Parts: sequence; structure tokens; C-alpha cells
Amino acid sequence: MRLATLRTGDGTVAAVAAGGDWVLLPQRDVGALLASPTGVAAARAAGPDGPAGAPLPPLAPGVTFGPVVPRPAKVVCCGHNYAGHIREMGRDLPRHPTLFTKYADTLAGAHDTVTVPAWAERLDWEAELAAVVGAPLHRASRAEAAAAIAGYTAANDLSVRSWQQHTGQWLPGKAFDATTPLGPVLVTADALDPAAGLELTCRVNGEIVQRGSTADLVFDAAALVAYVSAFTRLRPGDVVLTGTPAGVGAGRIPPRFLDDGDVVETELAGVGVLTTPIRIDRTDPFPGTAGPGRVVEVAHE
Amino acid sequence: MRLATLRTGDGTVAAVAAGGDWVLLPQRDVGALLASPTGVAAARAAGPDGPAGAPLPPLAPGVTFGPVVPRPAKVVCCGHNYAGHIREMGRDLPRHPTLFTKYADTLAGAHDTVTVPAWAERLDWEAELAAVVGAPLHRASRAEAAAAIAGYTAANDLSVRSWQQHTGQWLPGKAFDATTPLGPVLVTADALDPAAGLELTCRVNGEIVQRGSTADLVFDAAALVAYVSAFTRLRPGDVVLTGTPAGVGAGRIPPRFLDDGDVVETELAGVGVLTTPIRIDRTDPFPGTAGPGRVVEVAHE
Repeated sequence: MRLATLRTGDGTVAAVAAGGDWVLLPQRDVGALLASPTGVAAARAAGPDGPAGAPLPPLAPGVTFGPVVPRPAKVVCCGHNYAGHIREMGRDLPRHPTLFTKYADTLAGAHDTVTVPAWAERLDWEAELAAVVGAPLHRASRAEAAAAIAGYTAANDLSVRSWQQHTGQWLPGKAFDATTPLGPVLVTADALDPAAGLELTCRVNGEIVQRGSTADLVFDAAALVAYVSAFTRLRPGDVVLTGTPAGVGAGRIPPRFLDDGDVVETELAGVGVLTTPIRIDRTDPFPGTAGPGRVVEVAHE
Repeated sequence: MRLATLRTGDGTVAAVAAGGDWVLLPQRDVGALLASPTGVAAARAAGPDGPAGAPLPPLAPGVTFGPVVPRPAKVVCCGHNYAGHIREMGRDLPRHPTLFTKYADTLAGAHDTVTVPAWAERLDWEAELAAVVGAPLHRASRAEAAAAIAGYTAANDLSVRSWQQHTGQWLPGKAFDATTPLGPVLVTADALDPAAGLELTCRVNGEIVQRGSTADLVFDAAALVAYVSAFTRLRPGDVVLTGTPAGVGAGRIPPRFLDDGDVVETELAGVGVLTTPIRIDRTDPFPGTAGPGRVVEVAHE
């Protein structure tokens, strides 16, 4: 089953792909649908989806994809999680997942333009598999975590490397508003198995820059969800991004970053494609107009 | 003016200290009060507070302090922010604030017992000044940020050092549910000036372990709020923790951590005292009962 959060002129609405079309559901978004005790069953009752890999139903004029879960209370993200890339860098596999966070405000729709100000230098791509939680979880075992995953979607953890590297903690470069496309659909866990290996691809202006398999994850979605649930409760609609394979721009020689007018496509087999035009806004001055050091200089006065 | 979120048998309610008592307000908590266009003015209309430093009005039987803002969308925290401690460690003052996050679920009330499982080893104290945002902010200047701070409160960023150090990203050790007392009251910015220097003290079983002045912050509250607003929008009720002075347990020789039955008191002059009994729960097994490495071992199978 494929679920989406559709933006209409009048807010958002949850929808399910059935019979070659979008069937609108009572909830305002997929997060609310997952939180409803009867939401998933009612969506299934709308009828069968097309065969595996069938194209998504067309959107009506004026309708666009919102972030598939637009208001998660928790968006937990993992870095350093593809084994092949870790080994090729000559490092040992990590004993624990490297976790950081985004906010609901960080998310964007599947076809949204991502705009950053020019002073947010070195914008980079990170294609990712994301898991969406479907049931409350606290200190879950791996089996409990696996059973509580509602499904999977695609994300691109577009990262402002300059702000990510201001200090050792990555938050600022990972949490610019409306920079992480999430979607286009949530594919329920009964219909998709990332452990079997889903191809994950990132293209910039049509050129393939990342290609990995979700079978290569060090910490798979169930392991990440279980680990997170050890310290904080998870609830329906919470999102876990699982990390990115080799091929990010910062890792290239020479490094390569996104520029105004670039188009990033993030494709996860069985889920679909995020198409993300990039806009670098050169008219947005840093607050106070004295450049990124300004806040610091004022603080040191 | 001093505002609180009081827990009653029936949920929570915002309240203001006036005429030696708590006057209940229409909003369910201080976050909702700050988000209401008329909330602060209506609270002021309840009448004058006692003189500066007056004790808090007594709580009715069965009433306790909730986290002063119980449901913030964003809780942004700063590390490495007291100049004296940074200099004594022989380091340069940072050019940028070191930021990480907590969740609303991480917060606790001013007198709540904080319970962690025994496998959350090395629980440490971090007394802090916190600022609470009172107006929407995006890419604010320092002056705009200063004007948008509703007020200040106290926090203790109780940290599970073992999980904080699983990787270079601190999130897991900083976000155990219900481990960060926040309160007891929000003192509005017109009545308190941290830049002038408020004494911040942490005691463990009565022994002073931290004593600092908020005048020693490298990045003061306005600088932090402005910096955060450069990458993500802030809204009324969002919370910014400003970091802790020297004296944490991990920095002692030998290190010292909290044990079952300890009582942590966090005192911020002009705001009040957080009293936090510590409970180490030795009956809560790590999920799956195979110890903290379990999730990783399963993922590596």
C-alpha cells in the first residue's frame, strides 16, 4: 500500500493509491492516519494498489506532494551507516549508530524547490532510506521495533556543510528549514523489504552521484528504531533517516557542491523519486548584514 | 512577573504569581500562554508579584510544577559556553556555539524525581540558564532576538555520559526521557537580566559542585537565539538552554557521577531552585536483556 500527504489549496489530506487513482482519506496527513487506530485498515479498504513498481497515480491540477509525514514530533537521523563506504575509508564498523536530529520544519515535499541563502555555503546531497514508526515504542527489542515500523519512504538529507562544520555537533547544517524532501509516498512494510536490498540512487542534473543498496546498512531500520527507543519514546509518525551511501559531494576530489539551478533526483526502488530543484538565494543577507561571524563577534564584545 | 505551568489532578494550567498566591490563567501551560496574543498582558493584569527575590507562593495540595514549558516544538541546547571554564581548559573561545537538541519528552518538572535505568551509566549534572522564546523569529538580528526573549528559567541538562559518548554526536545521552528539569518559573525578561550576572549553582546532596555567573557566557541568550534563527524558525514557547559552567562530574579527578538516592539542586538567582531526586532503576533490563551492545550485534549479524 502506498500512502501520501497531498497538499491541496485547502491544507493537506492523507491519500492512498488504489485502482490507479488517489483515494482521499479522513486524516489531514499520513502522520495522523498512522496515529488513528483505524486509519491503516480504512486506507486498505479503499481497494488494491497497482502491481509492484506501478507508476504513482497522477496528481490533480494544483495538488502537490507534502512531506509524507509533515509534522513528526521526532525526526532522528543516522550518519556513517553504509558498510561499503565505511570500509573503503579504512574505518572499522561502528559499535553504535551516530544520531542527530532534524525538526518537522526541516522537511519538504517530494517536488519542492529547496532554497538556501548564499551564506549557507557548500550545500551537499545525501540520498537516504527513511523508516516511519507506526506504533508506540519504548525500550523495544529488535523484533518489537521491526513490527512497529509502518513503512518506508525516501529522503534527501541535504546538508549545509559550512554550518554542519561550525563545531563538532552537526545540528545547524542539518536543520535549515525546508531542506529535507521526504516522500513521495510511504510504502507499507508488508510491501517493501529494505533488508533484501533496495537500490538507492542520487542524480544531480541527470548524472548519477550516489548508488547504494539498503542491504549494506550497518544498522538497519529495526536496529535504529530499537536503539532510539532505548532513550526516548517513539510514536506513530516519528521518522528515522537511516544514513547515506558513498558519493556525497564533500567526499569527492575535488569536492563538489550544489549550485543555483541544479536539480537533485533521489530515487529509492519501490518508493519513487524525489525531484528537488535547488535555489541559492543571493538576495537574502545574513541577519545584520555583517556575515556569518556577526553573532559571534557581538557575543565576544 | 513569574509564570508557572502547574500540574493539577486534571492536566496542567498556566499560572502567575500575584499577591502572594498563584492566579490560574486560561491557558493549559506557559507555552500556550506565550503563543496567545493576549496571554502575557492578561497575566500581568492579575496583579503585582511580590518584591524581587520573594519566595514562590505555596502550591495547593496535590499540585506540582510541570516543566515550565511542557511541549516546546524545539529545545536547542548549547555546550562549551562558559568562558572561564573554556580558558582554564587551555582552549580558545569558540567562534560558533556548539548546538544539540532535546525533545519535549526530555523535560521534567522542578521537583520531579529523575529515573534512569542502570545501563544508562555515568549520569552527570549540568546546571543551566534557559531562555524561552516569546515571538516568531527567522533570521533575526541580535537586537530582534533579544526583544523576542519572553524570559528566563533554570534547567539541569542531566546527561548520560555513557550514551553521550557512543559516538561523536551527543544526542542519545542528552535525550533520555524526563531527565531535564525546567523551571520552577519563567521570569519575564523585564524582571531579570542574565547579562548583568546571575549566580548559577548546582548542589549534590547539599555540596556545591558548580557555581558560575551568567555574565560569563560566551554566547549569551540573545546571540544563541539569533544564531539558531538563522537556520530554523523559532516560535513562542521554544526553549534555548545556554550551557553549563565548570564543575561537572565528568571533569573531576576522579570523575564523580550520580547514584540512586542522590538529590541534585539547581539554583538560578532570581528564578529559584530545581530539586531533583535521582533514582537509578536496576530492575529495568536493557531491551532484549543482552546488554547495551545487543542492538549493534543484531545489526552486524
